[in-house]
Amino acid sequence: MPYSLPPRREIDFLLFDWLGADTLVDRGLADSLLNLSERLAAESFLPHYQQADVEEPTLDAEGQVRLCPAVRDALHRYAELGLFSVGFPDALGGSGFPFLLGAASFTYFAAANIATSAYPMLTVANARLIVAYGTPKQIEHFACPQIAGRWFGTMCLSEPQAGSNLADIRTRAIADGSDELGERFRITGNKMWISGGDQDASENIVHLVLAKIPGEDGRLKEGTAGISLFIVPKLLPDSTRNDVRVAGLNHKMGYRGTANCLLNFGEADGAVGWLVGKPGEGLRQMFAMMNEARINVGLGAAALAGRSYRLSSRYAHERLQGRLAGRRHGPSVPIVEHADVRRMLLTQRAYAEGALALSFYCAKLYDESADPARENLLALIIPVAKTWPSEYGLAANDIAIQIHGGYGYTRDFHVEQLWRDNRLNPIHEGTTGIQATDLIDRKILRDGRGLAVLMADMASTIDQASRQPALAGCASKLEDAWQRIAGCIAALRDAAPERTCDNAVPFLSAFGHMIVGWLWLDQAVAAAALEPLGADREALRDGKLLVCRYFFDTELPKIAAWADLVTARNDVAATAPVHLL
Amino acid sequence: MPYSLPPRREIDFLLFDWLGADTLVDRGLADSLLNLSERLAAESFLPHYQQADVEEPTLDAEGQVRLCPAVRDALHRYAELGLFSVGFPDALGGSGFPFLLGAASFTYFAAANIATSAYPMLTVANARLIVAYGTPKQIEHFACPQIAGRWFGTMCLSEPQAGSNLADIRTRAIADGSDELGERFRITGNKMWISGGDQDASENIVHLVLAKIPGEDGRLKEGTAGISLFIVPKLLPDSTRNDVRVAGLNHKMGYRGTANCLLNFGEADGAVGWLVGKPGEGLRQMFAMMNEARINVGLGAAALAGRSYRLSSRYAHERLQGRLAGRRHGPSVPIVEHADVRRMLLTQRAYAEGALALSFYCAKLYDESADPARENLLALIIPVAKTWPSEYGLAANDIAIQIHGGYGYTRDFHVEQLWRDNRLNPIHEGTTGIQATDLIDRKILRDGRGLAVLMADMASTIDQASRQPALAGCASKLEDAWQRIAGCIAALRDAAPERTCDNAVPFLSAFGHMIVGWLWLDQAVAAAALEPLGADREALRDGKLLVCRYFFDTELPKIAAWADLVTARNDVAATAPVHLL
Repeated sequence: MPYSLPPRREIDFLLFDWLGADTLVDRGLADSLLNLSERLAAESFLPHYQQADVEEPTLDAEGQVRLCPAVRDALHRYAELGLFSVGFPDALGGSGFPFLLGAASFTYFAAANIATSAYPMLTVANARLIVAYGTPKQIEHFACPQIAGRWFGTMCLSEPQAGSNLADIRTRAIADGSDELGERFRITGNKMWISGGDQDASENIVHLVLAKIPGEDGRLKEGTAGISLFIVPKLLPDSTRNDVRVAGLNHKMGYRGTANCLLNFGEADGAVGWLVGKPGEGLRQMFAMMNEARINVGLGAAALAGRSYRLSSRYAHERLQGRLAGRRHGPSVPIVEHADVRRMLLTQRAYAEGALALSFYCAKLYDESADPARENLLALIIPVAKTWPSEYGLAANDIAIQIHGGYGYTRDFHVEQLWRDNRLNPIHEGTTGIQATDLIDRKILRDGRGLAVLMADMASTIDQASRQPALAGCASKLEDAWQRIAGCIAALRDAAPERTCDNAVPFLSAFGHMIVGWLWLDQAVAAAALEPLGADREALRDGKLLVCRYFFDTELPKIAAWADLVTARNDVAATAPVHLL
Repeated sequence: MPYSLPPRREIDFLLFDWLGADTLVDRGLADSLLNLSERLAAESFLPHYQQADVEEPTLDAEGQVRLCPAVRDALHRYAELGLFSVGFPDALGGSGFPFLLGAASFTYFAAANIATSAYPMLTVANARLIVAYGTPKQIEHFACPQIAGRWFGTMCLSEPQAGSNLADIRTRAIADGSDELGERFRITGNKMWISGGDQDASENIVHLVLAKIPGEDGRLKEGTAGISLFIVPKLLPDSTRNDVRVAGLNHKMGYRGTANCLLNFGEADGAVGWLVGKPGEGLRQMFAMMNEARINVGLGAAALAGRSYRLSSRYAHERLQGRLAGRRHGPSVPIVEHADVRRMLLTQRAYAEGALALSFYCAKLYDESADPARENLLALIIPVAKTWPSEYGLAANDIAIQIHGGYGYTRDFHVEQLWRDNRLNPIHEGTTGIQATDLIDRKILRDGRGLAVLMADMASTIDQASRQPALAGCASKLEDAWQRIAGCIAALRDAAPERTCDNAVPFLSAFGHMIVGWLWLDQAVAAAALEPLGADREALRDGKLLVCRYFFDTELPKIAAWADLVTARNDVAATAPVHLL
């Protein structure tokens, strides 16, 4: 296997030694899925990583988006091998794996080629939403072809004037009778940033479109309450083209293999769409899928960070430059011998593996979310699961360039593209700023149930760690970090409602570092208990203990500066006169 | 003037109100230079910013590098207007401005188009080196045409196997008689990362090449002592081609308008070069120019940060999205009204203006460096002047993308390119890691004279600030920061020689934040004293006071976590087993 893909021992450790996935899935089946994923990622996704960056999607004269052929071929193999169906039940043609295993499988593809893997990620999310809220006919007609990988799906939320704030969407849906697929509407409006909005890799495309049904006065309801969800296929059941047109392709800095479109719905007679569920439920339905989408964004960011870590680690072991500290003569040494390169590699590893552990942990919570306590904990951590890998994974990508020096700044190496690709992740599916307000307002102040679960789980980790001499120091630092966060929460609870988010991102940073520190400690506890140990697993155990300690020494102390802004209710930014900004 | 270029009131404040440049230069002459620079940057450098990113330099069949015509035209105008000559004395055809004014002029060009402005930056540095160390004939023949802007120059230091460590260069120089231009040598070797290594914008190119003269046994001396410096022109005095060939162009992530070459010297008979000064002085000569080069890198990074700040500030004032905190209805507001956008803008401004102030401050020290105290202070701060703008300027560019949201991730806006361009700056002219060891080993432990000057200057700022109620809090925080740094320095002095750089970059981060905090406070003191005030200058004063306070509230507290690693002599990274990295 190419060394830049996730090492299997790491995936196995996270799934089975740490998270006990044996209770969720048969180990033999899991191994088959991981073997298959690893091989396909290596054979069909990784080889066109740079090619698809250069050969961007194009819009032909007929208004059809054309993908680089290698992207199409990879997706066809992904479909042939049944990978679209991994997380769906047998009855729908799926193979019934838990979400956690789907996430583990997806890690290989995201690491190998994040842009190509965006198509199945969106398709699966689309099908899952239809399965959850659609009628049996809608499921049969629109979800099942996606589960089979013959059709792909999109999510059409944003509009040019409404990105972070969906309350302001203007796309309209006018009733147009009904048929066996449900209540039919005619959709008119523009949707922006539609990944996979058009392509030539699937037989059809299922757009899930948020739109508003006008009231009797012809006006759209203000706010989010009036938003409904519609299934709008590219090709109608009679195989004619629906009234959906690609108005343009966005030319991005990275993620270039993913065709990203401005779509015009209903320039002629109105695009035909079928209502999902009841009117006004659109945002709720979409948000029910948001946990999955946000875990996936974080997971993709973690996968990009992991690949860049492995690339720079290999480079640092091979590149000869300079001599050991204090020596001026003798042969050049690999740069991994230099203290600052070690620092950078440890930081990368702490970020990349911390992000992946967080993503897998949340995927497991997702599988357990029939239990309200686990569901509440997941809801609380989701803003961190989206943001932390996106922000710190990007930082790991940045370090990879630095370790490669001038070479890392050229397109002869992959690390610059990994950095460009990952820069999207702090933006889409809710920016870092949006996640921070979600954490404070919805997940902490409006409903604190997740916090109680978190406290109990962290206390259990602290308890186990404090009984091991090698980890006791970290356990006590985690306890201190929790006290700081508790102080922030007390300050937030006392704040006036319009002031709670004055320092939202610094709070999210502090809270996120505590969560990732906790999960590093929890991994270290599991690693310390590993047995039996071969040489490979010994290195894994020693590595986890080393990086855990490094994270607690170098990263956890950063919490103080962020948390102090919250407890001091610093209002310099919030009250700054706009003419000075 | 385009709003994205540096506002004149900011440049004027830094030069005249803060740094007292009136003592260095006639104000009328300075104004003419700044007016000219502003106009030329707007008319000839800014318009092809994106074009030169797309139309990269190419290598034609004759081995000649071709630039995008707009780059050539801009450089010709730059030459016609005499801007290559700004910092040189009258006797050499220069206009005799102090370095600080040259830096201020350069800020406009770097902000408008960093890649195009790299050509004059390198040319001026090259000419200045020849003026400092060359013979009168060498100056006349090789420096003067550069001062006139007819010829351009390069610096040829790195080789494919020797980047950060020049001791390992293998380029050889064999004696070949002498002529009126000096001792002649034949040069053989490969030079990597040569910016402007070839182009079709100037009549000739002067390469300054580091090479080793073999001993009598034909072997190259180990280490840096054997390095000499040679002038190797592309065209020889008789107008024939010298034996210098472009072996390839590097395809970079950014800075694409700057042709970056692998050059082969001496594939046929050896390239003809003339020795500068004496054998073995090459590195010393090159490093005497390094202060200038490092200030310029930092200044370029600051200029990129500044432009991205102004772009995102304008965007935030115009883009409507969402409502004020606590409100759900009513019209959308400009995003500058949201607390987190304000936080991002203030952070950008603190980074961008802090970096520019630091660059200008160092440029003034450079002008004052006949005074040993000022020279020692400059030597101490140089690693910060190179690194801080490069690292935090890049962070400001990152924030600009975030403020633009999805739009910032597209190539329709400039902010993504500004981010890509700036990513080079932490790498070239000595990476951040190299700067950190320079700071500790050379500038603090080997020779602490700069520290005494710094302490005295900082004490003076603290004294002035502490007498003003609005600034007294910052003054006391700066004093605390100094105590932490002093603690670090004590720990470094006690450390074993091979352990001093175990946490070199965290120390540089802490030291750099203290320096920039000091200069923010010093600017605030000057701003508070501004008079007379029009509305424009009132906004400038209020802005400086606001951002100073913001920097002290949000950035200075970060010093603790970095400094603690140094004082605790944390060795987790330095002693980490390499197989775990």
